[in-house]
Amino acid sequence: MPQDNNTKTPVTVIGLGAMGSALAGAFLGAGHPTTVWNRSAGKGEDLVARGAVRAASAAEAVRAGDLVVVCVVDYDASAAVLEPLAADLAGRTLVNLTSDTPERAREAAAWAAAAGVDYLDGSVMVPTAVIGTPDALLFHAGPRAAYDKHEQTLKALGGHTTYVGEDHGLAAVYDLSLLDYFWTAMSGLVHAFALAAADGVPAAAIAPFLKANAGLVTSIVDGMAAEIDSGSYPGAEANLAMEVAGIDHIVHTAERRGLDATVLRAVNAVARRAIDLGHGADDWTATVEAVRKP
Amino acid sequence: MPQDNNTKTPVTVIGLGAMGSALAGAFLGAGHPTTVWNRSAGKGEDLVARGAVRAASAAEAVRAGDLVVVCVVDYDASAAVLEPLAADLAGRTLVNLTSDTPERAREAAAWAAAAGVDYLDGSVMVPTAVIGTPDALLFHAGPRAAYDKHEQTLKALGGHTTYVGEDHGLAAVYDLSLLDYFWTAMSGLVHAFALAAADGVPAAAIAPFLKANAGLVTSIVDGMAAEIDSGSYPGAEANLAMEVAGIDHIVHTAERRGLDATVLRAVNAVARRAIDLGHGADDWTATVEAVRKP
Ligand SMILES: NC(=O)c1ccc[n+]([C@@H]2O[C@H](COP(=O)([O-])OP(=O)(O)OC[C@H]3O[C@@H](n4cnc5c(N)ncnc54)[C@H](OP(=O)(O)O)[C@@H]3O)[C@@H](O)[C@H]2O)c1
Ligand SMILES: NC(=O)c1ccc[n+]([C@@H]2O[C@H](COP(=O)([O-])OP(=O)(O)OC[C@H]3O[C@@H](n4cnc5c(N)ncnc54)[C@H](OP(=O)(O)O)[C@@H]3O)[C@@H](O)[C@H]2O)c1
Repeated sequence: MPQDNNTKTPVTVIGLGAMGSALAGAFLGAGHPTTVWNRSAGKGEDLVARGAVRAASAAEAVRAGDLVVVCVVDYDASAAVLEPLAADLAGRTLVNLTSDTPERAREAAAWAAAAGVDYLDGSVMVPTAVIGTPDALLFHAGPRAAYDKHEQTLKALGGHTTYVGEDHGLAAVYDLSLLDYFWTAMSGLVHAFALAAADGVPAAAIAPFLKANAGLVTSIVDGMAAEIDSGSYPGAEANLAMEVAGIDHIVHTAERRGLDATVLRAVNAVARRAIDLGHGADDWTATVEAVRKP
Repeated sequence: MPQDNNTKTPVTVIGLGAMGSALAGAFLGAGHPTTVWNRSAGKGEDLVARGAVRAASAAEAVRAGDLVVVCVVDYDASAAVLEPLAADLAGRTLVNLTSDTPERAREAAAWAAAAGVDYLDGSVMVPTAVIGTPDALLFHAGPRAAYDKHEQTLKALGGHTTYVGEDHGLAAVYDLSLLDYFWTAMSGLVHAFALAAADGVPAAAIAPFLKANAGLVTSIVDGMAAEIDSGSYPGAEANLAMEVAGIDHIVHTAERRGLDATVLRAVNAVARRAIDLGHGADDWTATVEAVRKP
């Protein structure tokens, strides 16, 4: 139930898809007067039942909030809703939690600056069920003052609500970089299970070791980060020349079993180019030099 | 210092490279009478100083041990040393901890069977510094009775010494599958750092989030394993069609910054083929079907 609404920032949520609904629910749960709007009817009944006000138009929704959060399918959709509302948005803080590229975020920020709208661009890094919990990670980028003004309200969305910098593209940069790792790792996980299964090893049998291995990756991150930032990759215990030979074993073993190995072939091609660039005695982190010279 | 040597199985270690030396050191540390041999001179001085006996020939070394462990560069090297010694090996247990493919392990097992040698094939999954500690993971495959006979001795090499099955190829299958995941994930980590750096984000700034992300992968392993083993991949919260669109954003963002994106392009090509195979509404695990139909 909403408590001391009078002291809580009024919030508007535009877009009541899966994520927008979760965001509105978290604001309601934290006791914020919450106004909602969705392009098509039939969404947000549960939010209204919990005390949200349904606005009759996007303009009316915007005028009800000091903080206006938008979460729709992409930036074409958010621009379609917001650009006609520049006058209504002026003087309020707009937070766009739609996912897209850094370029789209920067374009939206340029539009907001021209329209005199305080603008933050954010990324939601967790599924809807985690929104509003201490575990939820969201990134925000844009003017520090706008973030500071609304930080307490934005923390209603998740315990790990994090400000990443003035450049409006940065929330998307963090988002895409983390997903870059995540999907590559997920591809590796599926492939490892396929390789084990080809010789009759059930996924359940190798899973405990893959978990330990995924934990090992965690323990490598900080050391690799220090090497990336310094641009020096000394191969103390291991080196690229040795590692590409090991990876070739895996590629050939997979292909001999009729499995696709295009991902690991691409991994090794990048590593070989790093060797060609003179990094054969360096460690794996040196492959960043080949990533930068495609 | 060795204690109660009389009750400990005499062990021979053939190959005193980085790993062979670590293995011999762990046997010595656990109090096993340890005989060592290396093809070329000048290796293992430290082991001899700690009580190891240096054999004058590989044959002499083999005859000194009940358990004969070999760890050399590859199976061509282990065959070159061992095949002339079939008569000396008969009645002992041979454990080959050289890394190679399942096929090479099975060939070596066939030779050992013909020669009347009890044979286990193993894989060392940790760097030399971890050998002999509770954290060290080693896989062994081959006759259960041979493993059981020497399990206590083999546990001197690491707390996570694990028997994976009768098929001699299985230690290599586990080894290659885990490395398959590991190198793919390591490639994703480097690429994520490169993508963040392209927009001015230092690796140190994104590292804490990449660590959390790597931890998230750990939490996905068991659910994915259950799907792989059942062959059913229901896309409840997310689906492949949505995910390939998100991955395209990352690929294009990387390429716009002049970065190589061949790995993630290959990841997405596999996912697209899974969609073509009818898995668009399934979750990511369904990409295993495309891995199996290259
Ligand atoms: N769901 C998640 O777990 C998750 C996690 C992290 C990030 N995200 C991001 O959150 C954003 C929203 O995702 P979602 O899961 O909520 O998507 P969704 O359930 O598909 O909802 C899409 C929303 O966008 C609206 N929309 C689409 N086109 C529009 C237009 N031209 N004008 C106005 N509204 C339009 C839809 O309105 P109608 O109802 O009128 O169609 C609906 O409210 C996406 O950028 C997504 O990447 C989602
Ligand atoms: N080092 C690690 O961290 C690590 C981790 C996991 C697995 N492994 C695996 O352990 C095995 C050994 O690796 P390592 O690091 O010890 O390698 P290493 O330091 O390069 O030593 C190679 C060993 O192989 C011997 N050798 C090479 N060709 C030979 C031949 N034709 N006949 C007899 N001996 C020969 C060498 O003898 P000479 O001294 O006479 O050249 C040396 O003892 C490899 O399969 C490796 O993949 C290593």
